[in-house]
Amino acid sequence: MNISPLAPSSYPTLPVIAGVRLATAACGVRYAERTDLLLAEFTEGTNVAGVFTKSLTASAPVLACREALKNGTARALVVNSGNSNAFTGKTGISSVERIIAATGTLFNCDKNSVFTASTGVIGEKLPDEKITSALSATAATLAENSWEAAARAIMTTDTYPKMATKTANIGGTKITINGIAKGSGMIAPDMATMLAFVFTDAKIPSAILQELLNETNETTFNSITVDGDTSTSDTLIVFATGKAENPQADYSDFRRALHELLHELALHIVKDGEGAEKLVTIKVAGAESKPAAKRIAMSIANSPLVKTALAASDANWGRIVMAVGKAGEKADRDKLCIAIGGITVAENGAAAENYREEQITSHMQGREILIEVNVGVGSEQATVYTCDLTHRYIDINGSYRT
Amino acid sequence: MNISPLAPSSYPTLPVIAGVRLATAACGVRYAERTDLLLAEFTEGTNVAGVFTKSLTASAPVLACREALKNGTARALVVNSGNSNAFTGKTGISSVERIIAATGTLFNCDKNSVFTASTGVIGEKLPDEKITSALSATAATLAENSWEAAARAIMTTDTYPKMATKTANIGGTKITINGIAKGSGMIAPDMATMLAFVFTDAKIPSAILQELLNETNETTFNSITVDGDTSTSDTLIVFATGKAENPQADYSDFRRALHELLHELALHIVKDGEGAEKLVTIKVAGAESKPAAKRIAMSIANSPLVKTALAASDANWGRIVMAVGKAGEKADRDKLCIAIGGITVAENGAAAENYREEQITSHMQGREILIEVNVGVGSEQATVYTCDLTHRYIDINGSYRT
Repeated sequence: MNISPLAPSSYPTLPVIAGVRLATAACGVRYAERTDLLLAEFTEGTNVAGVFTKSLTASAPVLACREALKNGTARALVVNSGNSNAFTGKTGISSVERIIAATGTLFNCDKNSVFTASTGVIGEKLPDEKITSALSATAATLAENSWEAAARAIMTTDTYPKMATKTANIGGTKITINGIAKGSGMIAPDMATMLAFVFTDAKIPSAILQELLNETNETTFNSITVDGDTSTSDTLIVFATGKAENPQADYSDFRRALHELLHELALHIVKDGEGAEKLVTIKVAGAESKPAAKRIAMSIANSPLVKTALAASDANWGRIVMAVGKAGEKADRDKLCIAIGGITVAENGAAAENYREEQITSHMQGREILIEVNVGVGSEQATVYTCDLTHRYIDINGSYRT
Repeated sequence: MNISPLAPSSYPTLPVIAGVRLATAACGVRYAERTDLLLAEFTEGTNVAGVFTKSLTASAPVLACREALKNGTARALVVNSGNSNAFTGKTGISSVERIIAATGTLFNCDKNSVFTASTGVIGEKLPDEKITSALSATAATLAENSWEAAARAIMTTDTYPKMATKTANIGGTKITINGIAKGSGMIAPDMATMLAFVFTDAKIPSAILQELLNETNETTFNSITVDGDTSTSDTLIVFATGKAENPQADYSDFRRALHELLHELALHIVKDGEGAEKLVTIKVAGAESKPAAKRIAMSIANSPLVKTALAASDANWGRIVMAVGKAGEKADRDKLCIAIGGITVAENGAAAENYREEQITSHMQGREILIEVNVGVGSEQATVYTCDLTHRYIDINGSYRT
């Protein structure tokens, strides 16, 4: 497996989060010779918030998490990779129930405080006994420092583990937020992304945590796309242990840190998008509303013609015009402006007078591409992130099950 | 240029349509050593109907055609390939005006009876003088039998010329309908397709012709997709010369023939979709409404994960579940049924009990794939056609401008 050319040169070392312990194991759900199980234990009193896929064919673990979330507290998280337990009918629901029951017995906790997630192939029965029979031995290895191992255990076609850490201040108390995530195909999150887990020692009521998560998710995980395909397993959960014992004060700095952390993790998912060789930032301004701006930006980000041109380092901005046109949102063709790498290539409904393709050649050949579009009808804007469409995407997805 | 493996083994010979003459020329708009101009002359009294892209960044020729259509009659059609004259601002509009004026002078007709279309690169100035200066010499070669030459002159990345012919009966009079079309990327027609022209000797008022076209277009050109990208130039025009002198009677057989002709041309566009190696028919039934059925079918047809699995002959039906789930239309996960090549692979929200992958291996390896989905919430259905996503799509679109 080649590591994405957009991977960071080194991975951050995540600090301990008081009240969180992690363990991983190789259960052989699907993959051989690698870990595929993550077990996390949370201290009593840990609050939780989550957002999940809007897919109508959501997986069994997603349905169970939605139910457990009503409780607002968490004691354990169980994640497997290799099999998504999606579209597995009643069998799939029984599998989740068995995993939750075994975990509840292990930690002597209520089943509504156990969260699970699964990622991998859709439509195959989850061999849950491989997981339940490994739980006890895995729990014996729970430790405070297993962050990179945790990030690796939840990977599927990801080429590198995705981690981030931030600190924030709540009423004079320093708190820490750690996050891990995985991609890397079927990424066009609709309320959440594939799998991402955030851990903090902050003391925050779950209702407020949920509100902060909804807000920050919208401009981070909900603003990325790899291939326009929305997973049946999208899950983003935040666990707050409360061990920082911060006062219940102003959460604005926590919100800032949470947003930064989710942004960083979301960008990692794009950078490790299947076959990705370029990170593409698309900023749409001058739109009638924020949703309109985002829909136009996503239309550009999901266009296979735009993405194949980017893969070839070709500044074929006519395809950006096409994608604006097909988005179905208001745009003024005669005021439309497009800039690539900061250079205006088109304005007022035609190619820019002084633009010469050589001006952006080196930008197009780089790893990070910036596309700015002003559609000239209003003052709202949105930014989304995507990657290019390369031969490797086809290779990976033609051989995924073999 | 390799010809699509889905191309017909021979091309049909299109008969003469009384009142229509065709000529082609090599003007050097963009391509070297091939024809890139089509000129068609229609007899006086020819009625016309058309549908065009809904793109908000529609090309200059599309805007001019919409205007001319108000007139309801046609005397000439001028089409060039190699440059779409889209997003070319006032310059582009002037180019169309000059082409229309020159054609009007040539045939001594009203400018509102001249239709034009352009296809090719977006955002570059159309060298219209290359076209206008060639018109007179081209007109000298107008002939009744130049159908294949006409179909070839309008090609861009198409690998074969697309033609079809049908006959119908109106009130006891036999009439003929010929059609030509071109694809083959940026194909997700929204009210019309890239470029398609239909010619008939039928005598039909333009209002009725327009109504018949709107109806038949919906299940033909508006039901195909290659890459989910909607062109700025989509144009479908029907010219009816009236030379058959049929009575103004029941048009139902004409409607049947028109539908068959458009269906055949639309399938040719899919078969010659950029990089296509398989023709995929997607039938969605059990939906709440026809638009819902179509949206679900298009969600499957445009999913890069479904299309790359098809390219690899992999029956990864979990991705079909995903695409149903993300479509945003009502579907009952626990009643969802999926059949491939007539074999039920999933039913009642899980893998079918008796399904074994070997049952559909030979179907998956073939050139024509049938996917049937029942979403279990109603009785409406829709069928759409698409192709697989192969390495050649990326090759073609990474090098399109070079």
